[in-house]
Amino acid sequence: MSLVIIGSIALDDIETPFGKVEKIVGGATPFASLAASYFYEKVKVIGIIGGDFPKSELEIWKEHKIDLEGLQIAEDRKNFYWSGKYHNDMNNRDTLETGLNVLEDFDPIYPDSYQDCEYLLLANLSPVTQLLAINRLKNRPKLIVMDTMNFWMDIAMDDLLATIKMVDVLTINDAEARQLSGEYSLVKAANRILAMGPKYLIIKKGEHGALLFHQDQIFSAPALPLAEVFDPTGAGDTFAGGFIGYMAHVGTVNFNNMKNAIIYGSALASFCVEKFGTEKIKNLSESEVAARVQEFVKLSDFKIEN
Amino acid sequence: MSLVIIGSIALDDIETPFGKVEKIVGGATPFASLAASYFYEKVKVIGIIGGDFPKSELEIWKEHKIDLEGLQIAEDRKNFYWSGKYHNDMNNRDTLETGLNVLEDFDPIYPDSYQDCEYLLLANLSPVTQLLAINRLKNRPKLIVMDTMNFWMDIAMDDLLATIKMVDVLTINDAEARQLSGEYSLVKAANRILAMGPKYLIIKKGEHGALLFHQDQIFSAPALPLAEVFDPTGAGDTFAGGFIGYMAHVGTVNFNNMKNAIIYGSALASFCVEKFGTEKIKNLSESEVAARVQEFVKLSDFKIEN
Repeated sequence: MSLVIIGSIALDDIETPFGKVEKIVGGATPFASLAASYFYEKVKVIGIIGGDFPKSELEIWKEHKIDLEGLQIAEDRKNFYWSGKYHNDMNNRDTLETGLNVLEDFDPIYPDSYQDCEYLLLANLSPVTQLLAINRLKNRPKLIVMDTMNFWMDIAMDDLLATIKMVDVLTINDAEARQLSGEYSLVKAANRILAMGPKYLIIKKGEHGALLFHQDQIFSAPALPLAEVFDPTGAGDTFAGGFIGYMAHVGTVNFNNMKNAIIYGSALASFCVEKFGTEKIKNLSESEVAARVQEFVKLSDFKIEN
Repeated sequence: MSLVIIGSIALDDIETPFGKVEKIVGGATPFASLAASYFYEKVKVIGIIGGDFPKSELEIWKEHKIDLEGLQIAEDRKNFYWSGKYHNDMNNRDTLETGLNVLEDFDPIYPDSYQDCEYLLLANLSPVTQLLAINRLKNRPKLIVMDTMNFWMDIAMDDLLATIKMVDVLTINDAEARQLSGEYSLVKAANRILAMGPKYLIIKKGEHGALLFHQDQIFSAPALPLAEVFDPTGAGDTFAGGFIGYMAHVGTVNFNNMKNAIIYGSALASFCVEKFGTEKIKNLSESEVAARVQEFVKLSDFKIEN
């Protein structure tokens, strides 16, 4: 049994008010798989890198026991590249350049050993590729979590809807939930999106936390108020990885476990933004993670007698 | 011992995507005092109304056991008037017209019977008037809660700072916290504002809930996700009234009681937005309020072992 993560692996140039870095490792998969590795031992990656991707990074993933058999290496081609600049409020960013490169014709191939996939994270990628990744599994996983973004709503809505229909959990942000549903109220948006197929919907609200919707139940998770957000890149991917990693760890899919998974995912994401790229989430101790989770508990705890 | 509420009493013209109403009762005090009346029996009001204010409304307040001895009635003058129009997202509004009228030279006079004030709510008013209201009390109340808005930051910052220095709890929204502190991060903003004098700071985030800051402690309260927000006018005042009413009810000022007070205030505010003006919060049953509070408990509850 394993957790398979499929998504982009990037080299990023990032500028924030705190500084500028070039060609650091980014993309959904590095964040998500590192985050998941804190909760689950059998994380397997499907993705593609170019010849300019630093091999030293792969050693770090291996130290986290991340299985790289499904990693395709195109030595003679360039890696997927993204550059962006954050505004002073850190809530908005401009994409300066995107070079799809190896990602353009990426084919998500499962090594045979990945067919034991029980938990599948479709990190942000083209919905056509995501659907292919579902259909290539011989057995339907116990839990499929899908992340996506407004870009696919703009250019590939029909493909997106076809993929959303197949998954158990969809994670998107509040603006994307409004775009996807055409509803401003997040409650109405959630009802419409749940009618599209997913059993669970997570709406990420950045510094305002996250909402989990399932049937007529709602859970509101807080975000840890932070004095400094150093680099928000990858926070959503880290959240998704921590979320599914925790679900794989507990092994039972239900609303209560998902609430905790959201807290664990949020805790990992709160570390992610403290440094550039994956720097912070590469080197966390178990006790650091546990302490951060307790901060979430304390932050939102109150006692009112029934 | 009593809870005194000082603030505006308005006649509002309001337009929302759901409809339009004219000359309905609004202003901070009606919302705050009705909300407080659900938790505490000795709510006393200081304010001023004009001859065009409907006297029938005063009967409703009396039914809620709200003491109106401190209500000034200027029969030959016009009431404070406000008209506004909400945008489709209900998070933004335009003020179309403001007529200060009786409010222009409002003098907050305490009847002798109000000198037993133990809890003082300075609802939104000019900071000069708010400071006067503090200084006219012979004994310093056990708890002074102050609400204010960006308008006073724009035109009367020095007066505002002098008043803020004197209070125990300041309630403002996130944009106002950023404006007042000059800091974007709410954690940094809170630290700066707490250094201005108040022991507690409540940052209201509308549909994203509220944050309570005190020393190095933070509490994050959820907002109830609503399918429909009919009219947001007065939600902040209702929150403040419910908050201080609950504090007066429990009678001990500490962080834990304030956490619960925020939940009770938020519950009342969630009712407020369901109808125009004070319509909904005039007629709540004890069991309705209790059930709504339990919705907040359920909404944010999760269990993680330490």
